Amino acid sequence: MIEDLIEKNRSYRRFYQNTEVNIETLRELVNLARLSASAANKQPLKYVLSSDSKKNADIFQNLAWAGYLKDWEGPKEGERPAAYIVILGDKNIAQSFGCDHGIAAQSILIGATEKGLGGCMIGSVRRNELSQVLALSDHYEILLVIALGKPKETVVIEPMPSDGNFKYWRDEEGVHHVPKRALDEIILDQGIHKGE
Amino acid sequence: MIEDLIEKNRSYRRFYQNTEVNIETLRELVNLARLSASAANKQPLKYVLSSDSKKNADIFQNLAWAGYLKDWEGPKEGERPAAYIVILGDKNIAQSFGCDHGIAAQSILIGATEKGLGGCMIGSVRRNELSQVLALSDHYEILLVIALGKPKETVVIEPMPSDGNFKYWRDEEGVHHVPKRALDEIILDQGIHKGE
Repeated sequence: MIEDLIEKNRSYRRFYQNTEVNIETLRELVNLARLSASAANKQPLKYVLSSDSKKNADIFQNLAWAGYLKDWEGPKEGERPAAYIVILGDKNIAQSFGCDHGIAAQSILIGATEKGLGGCMIGSVRRNELSQVLALSDHYEILLVIALGKPKETVVIEPMPSDGNFKYWRDEEGVHHVPKRALDEIILDQGIHKGE
Repeated sequence: MIEDLIEKNRSYRRFYQNTEVNIETLRELVNLARLSASAANKQPLKYVLSSDSKKNADIFQNLAWAGYLKDWEGPKEGERPAAYIVILGDKNIAQSFGCDHGIAAQSILIGATEKGLGGCMIGSVRRNELSQVLALSDHYEILLVIALGKPKETVVIEPMPSDGNFKYWRDEEGVHHVPKRALDEIILDQGIHKGE
């Protein structure tokens, strides 16, 4: 069921780095994004795939990890992503990309979860440096980097604390805890018309 | 399989209007969005649900439909959406919403597809008028409207024509055709590092 997949699809940041995710798998995941909705059907998103260790290292060094974990600089060697999908916006097709990359990234990550993989959408990227490393033409804008691999950590959903602090944390066993707002907090209006 | 769901999850614009989508179903769909990723885990999205005919009509009149179908002003009475989920950004929580609403909308629509429903993400909205109709406070920004219902049309994916024209069209039988770029067009780089 889709609810199980979505619940299992947490943001993972530590992986079995040596468990390969091959290019064919990445292509299957991008195909899910390809089949997903795009504003005005323009389909301006393009993708760069990486599953080799040299290219992965080049990408890794241009990412920022888990901003709220101040004592953690990101996954150590051996626990880094085994693959990446870099989502680009092609400015020859559109000048703005709305939320197309969110739609695409969610399709990719739900698909990865179904395959027993996991990952993380990373928006905090050194874009100029990564563009150079990937030898991207000027008309490509880096929108998101999706890190992928076989997850090597446990992530647990928690109720939002009463003070509303939405920062995730990691406990002494290394379990990652993520507070989520309750359904009744995020639904403003249960569907009854105000005039009724 | 998730690929089947994503392939089946087309943008539908005509529905069996009298086939109700009840509030409990809408809540289950928003719960899928709730469990999905959010930038920095801020979770600034809020939701308005509608499944009653009066409120649906108020929402409907503030939407634009299928920009490329110049001879069609949108679904006629009897084929209109049976329900809506309006996705808002709460500016008391964040000032920008990145692609959170794309992530949320994709979760909602894949969940709807699993339930035998379908829908359409609509970004072309008369925002001021809809805010008034929904009596929204100033700190809510309308990001997307998701129309939902039991689909009453056939949507077919087509290869992108050689001239690159990405506009969808409707044939004389009323079938809706949507050109999609090929996988090899959207993947720039197959994962081989340029230095190798």
